[in-house]
Amino acid sequence: MTKQKIASAPSIRRLPSYLHIIRLFQREGEEYISGTFIGQKLNLDPIQVRKDLGITGVAGKPKKGYPVEELISAIECFLGWNRTRNAVLVGVGNLGSALLGYQELKRHGLNILAAFDKNPEKTGGTVHGTPVLSVDAMETEILRLGVTTAILTIPSSFAQEIADILIKAGIRGIWNFTNVKLKVPDGVMVQKEDISSGYAMFCIMLHD
Amino acid sequence: MTKQKIASAPSIRRLPSYLHIIRLFQREGEEYISGTFIGQKLNLDPIQVRKDLGITGVAGKPKKGYPVEELISAIECFLGWNRTRNAVLVGVGNLGSALLGYQELKRHGLNILAAFDKNPEKTGGTVHGTPVLSVDAMETEILRLGVTTAILTIPSSFAQEIADILIKAGIRGIWNFTNVKLKVPDGVMVQKEDISSGYAMFCIMLHD
Repeated sequence: MTKQKIASAPSIRRLPSYLHIIRLFQREGEEYISGTFIGQKLNLDPIQVRKDLGITGVAGKPKKGYPVEELISAIECFLGWNRTRNAVLVGVGNLGSALLGYQELKRHGLNILAAFDKNPEKTGGTVHGTPVLSVDAMETEILRLGVTTAILTIPSSFAQEIADILIKAGIRGIWNFTNVKLKVPDGVMVQKEDISSGYAMFCIMLHD
Repeated sequence: MTKQKIASAPSIRRLPSYLHIIRLFQREGEEYISGTFIGQKLNLDPIQVRKDLGITGVAGKPKKGYPVEELISAIECFLGWNRTRNAVLVGVGNLGSALLGYQELKRHGLNILAAFDKNPEKTGGTVHGTPVLSVDAMETEILRLGVTTAILTIPSSFAQEIADILIKAGIRGIWNFTNVKLKVPDGVMVQKEDISSGYAMFCIMLHD
């Protein structure tokens, strides 16, 4: 698919906020939405909006705008949010628990089948409906579930060690919330989501 | 300070991971750390490492590398992490609670003096040691505390409304975890931290 190749990271990152605005508009029963309107809502130039939405393959109609239903489907399809993505989560601390309860990710198809923690006090029960198992059972359980996606919310000092086990168990995509740059073999994808990096940007921006 | 002007966002975002690696190295009692070593640990080109660290104003010495203590201080000073930054947090849901308990942010000087929520069941007590108050008391309390930084972890539908109150109460920097692009007057800074955007990138990257 050449479309995905030309999509820039900032454009992809903006798609969820477009989806959010378009869905609110859909609830009001509107059939078409203009790039200008979306731009106003998101403080973005309409040219940028049209460029970003172009990556989904849907074109706006002159004077009418984008067909709402079709645009929602196209964004969801582009992001793969129109289907369920099974995953496991490792590290049921504050952030891990927050992600297990994060409704928006569920709405986008993320289905966390099991969570793992090394603390015996945390295992055996459920958090936000997801069973929490011992990290000792992780490899076996991931193989049994056939899951290939994992979310890593453990302390950084264990990140590489746990990632190695995950990869051994067949994990091919890791959403990494630790501040460790993981070493992974070819064919394994890592998306780093470092809140400290965001905080660094915030602090620099405040320049106080 | 012209140094900050030439620092690119990706360079700033990498500083926390440098700090992490250098601190681990410091614990082993080493006095100097090489750009090559840091690069190996983070899978980054040493040239990139030297360029990024250059924004802190510390130069490496030939054959020795960077002085560890000085480099840590310089990164912390550059990011303003060598001093306390008072803040309030609005929205004590899963993500808000996680951030209240996030030790790494505390280590980087973030001091959340009070949290606010509209749910009476959540107010009156503390979460991870931070008092949770009613959102009705927010404006008065922020003015009383003299805080100018706020963290927004509320549902998106209330984001603009709450931001307006925060700004009225004197908030000048908002770390925004909602997926709403806030409309704010000149002089108010917003850093958006959208987990859905990260999830969008993750899904595209997996291309499965």
